[in-house]
Amino acid sequence: MKKKNETILQAFRGEKTDYTPVWFMRQAGRSQPEYRKLKEKYSLFEITHQPELCAYVTRLPVEQYGVDAAILYKDIMTPLPAIGVDVEIKTGIGPVIDQPIETKSDVEKLGTIDPESDVPYVMDTIRLLTKEQLDVPLIGFSGAPFTLASYMIEGGPSKNYHRTKAMMYRDPATWFALMERLADTTITYVKAQIKAGAQAIQIFDSWVGALSVPDYRYYIKPIMERIFTELKDENVPLILFGVGASHLIMEWNDLPVDVIGIDWRISIKEARDLGITKPLQGNLDPAILLSDWKTIEERTKAIIDQGRDLPAHIFNLGHGVTPEIDPAILKKVTELVHHYSKQ
Amino acid sequence: MKKKNETILQAFRGEKTDYTPVWFMRQAGRSQPEYRKLKEKYSLFEITHQPELCAYVTRLPVEQYGVDAAILYKDIMTPLPAIGVDVEIKTGIGPVIDQPIETKSDVEKLGTIDPESDVPYVMDTIRLLTKEQLDVPLIGFSGAPFTLASYMIEGGPSKNYHRTKAMMYRDPATWFALMERLADTTITYVKAQIKAGAQAIQIFDSWVGALSVPDYRYYIKPIMERIFTELKDENVPLILFGVGASHLIMEWNDLPVDVIGIDWRISIKEARDLGITKPLQGNLDPAILLSDWKTIEERTKAIIDQGRDLPAHIFNLGHGVTPEIDPAILKKVTELVHHYSKQ
Repeated sequence: MKKKNETILQAFRGEKTDYTPVWFMRQAGRSQPEYRKLKEKYSLFEITHQPELCAYVTRLPVEQYGVDAAILYKDIMTPLPAIGVDVEIKTGIGPVIDQPIETKSDVEKLGTIDPESDVPYVMDTIRLLTKEQLDVPLIGFSGAPFTLASYMIEGGPSKNYHRTKAMMYRDPATWFALMERLADTTITYVKAQIKAGAQAIQIFDSWVGALSVPDYRYYIKPIMERIFTELKDENVPLILFGVGASHLIMEWNDLPVDVIGIDWRISIKEARDLGITKPLQGNLDPAILLSDWKTIEERTKAIIDQGRDLPAHIFNLGHGVTPEIDPAILKKVTELVHHYSKQ
Repeated sequence: MKKKNETILQAFRGEKTDYTPVWFMRQAGRSQPEYRKLKEKYSLFEITHQPELCAYVTRLPVEQYGVDAAILYKDIMTPLPAIGVDVEIKTGIGPVIDQPIETKSDVEKLGTIDPESDVPYVMDTIRLLTKEQLDVPLIGFSGAPFTLASYMIEGGPSKNYHRTKAMMYRDPATWFALMERLADTTITYVKAQIKAGAQAIQIFDSWVGALSVPDYRYYIKPIMERIFTELKDENVPLILFGVGASHLIMEWNDLPVDVIGIDWRISIKEARDLGITKPLQGNLDPAILLSDWKTIEERTKAIIDQGRDLPAHIFNLGHGVTPEIDPAILKKVTELVHHYSKQ
């Protein structure tokens, strides 16, 4: 379905737009009082597994803030149970996996995903949103192999990813087997999302910034090359994002990806000066949103000004919205981005 | 006392040395079986508060690996109880502070440190080591104000430092008051360590990489400028280190600091190309030490080769040794660094 507002898709393609489009990572969820109210009645499982509820949560920030895209309200762990990984999201900790992957045989036991039968609620939510409810594009997404593998190997969130890196260095055969399985999962999962109606895809390689450039080149880049090459044919814009990964973005610039998402550790200007030729997405530190309006306004304007040249810029945060951030501020920032970027 | 081996001090000053000196962050402690055995008999409190025990733990890696410096076996939280901060080191979590700093009046309640009366066991350990036991220099250290403040404001380790940044943005008067108090503490604590015999000082601003360059310039740099200016008169080399902080090292290069410590997210060569004019310390990813010897050797040699030009290079890891790292490997790496850098 053609959306009323497709500005963000133009920007993802690097084209000139009337204004700078904006969305916020983790714009839906715990920062919103409507979500917290819903959580009093329904569990996280119910919200994510009931398309009507999940669609409601997904479109709330579009209706309330006027952002230029919705992003599916899901966790990056969503496809993992389908391939045989038992994940539990624990409050205050994050995803916990009781039986971490250790050996080649653990990897070989992993299955494949059939999104329509394994995660039908995801596909139904996308259809509901894109065919009926949204007048802006829906961004689908997936975790990238390194980031998914880090949870699967560490058994949960990690500070230093030493178990993950140890497998990478010590047992490259197992490592690459795992990467290929997760690439298969990502590709199949994302293609299904696109078929269901998602008009852009963000790949979250959230924690890959823990690697050095030589390690990224050897252990990760070929897998990402394969993923983006296979997804390229689908003809929807592909965004790649990671936290603390500014040392890797020149590697990303080589990949067949459309948009590079950056955090506040590098500025839009510095990324351009470095030689990034693709559209950039970002990069306000979400912590700035806890500041006074004067500071928020200054920092937001500075980012917009740096992003005025082609290829286009998509305004976003450098990481997700956290629960303590005031929705009224997100609305005000959205208006500021739209208004100021027209000047 | 003049040490037999002062090579590392020459390197800290940027001078040419016969070989590349080496030490490892967190070289003493849980990775060593002798330490774990000691822990069966003594608590962490006993080890850090009894100079004989603490000196033993501190000098173990010097005797066992042949590293070119010892680093005091202490936590960066050590000086905080003296100024009125109630810290508890919880296993598996890290430092926990039950009553976090929130207001200006919380900051005003903080006291000053008198190292000889507040932490006499630290001073006695340094004297024991430097006057009698060590034949290499002892590196003293302190946490930097941002990193210490992050624990004091968050109440423990944090992923995003949002409470810390919120104070910084929302209440700069309280922020700068806290920074000045912690700068006072750092300066007094470090000066006492130098007086007791420490021959170099590393300032750990471990978590400051969470900040953008503009925030670092405004909220942190003037404080660091003051600390290093006041310590400069002591005439011992000053090292500054942080994790994931490669976007800040050009700011560090402006400070009156002698040595810049980097992690594996930037190479020695890239740091030089960027314009770093000071000696560099680092930067092997400690996770590499979980790999096979061939990989460890290759990566170590590559770092040594990049560090051959003046100003001198000090080999180290890009972050601390973790408990699962094999002491035999640390010994082998030390020998490799010494041997290969002579060629």
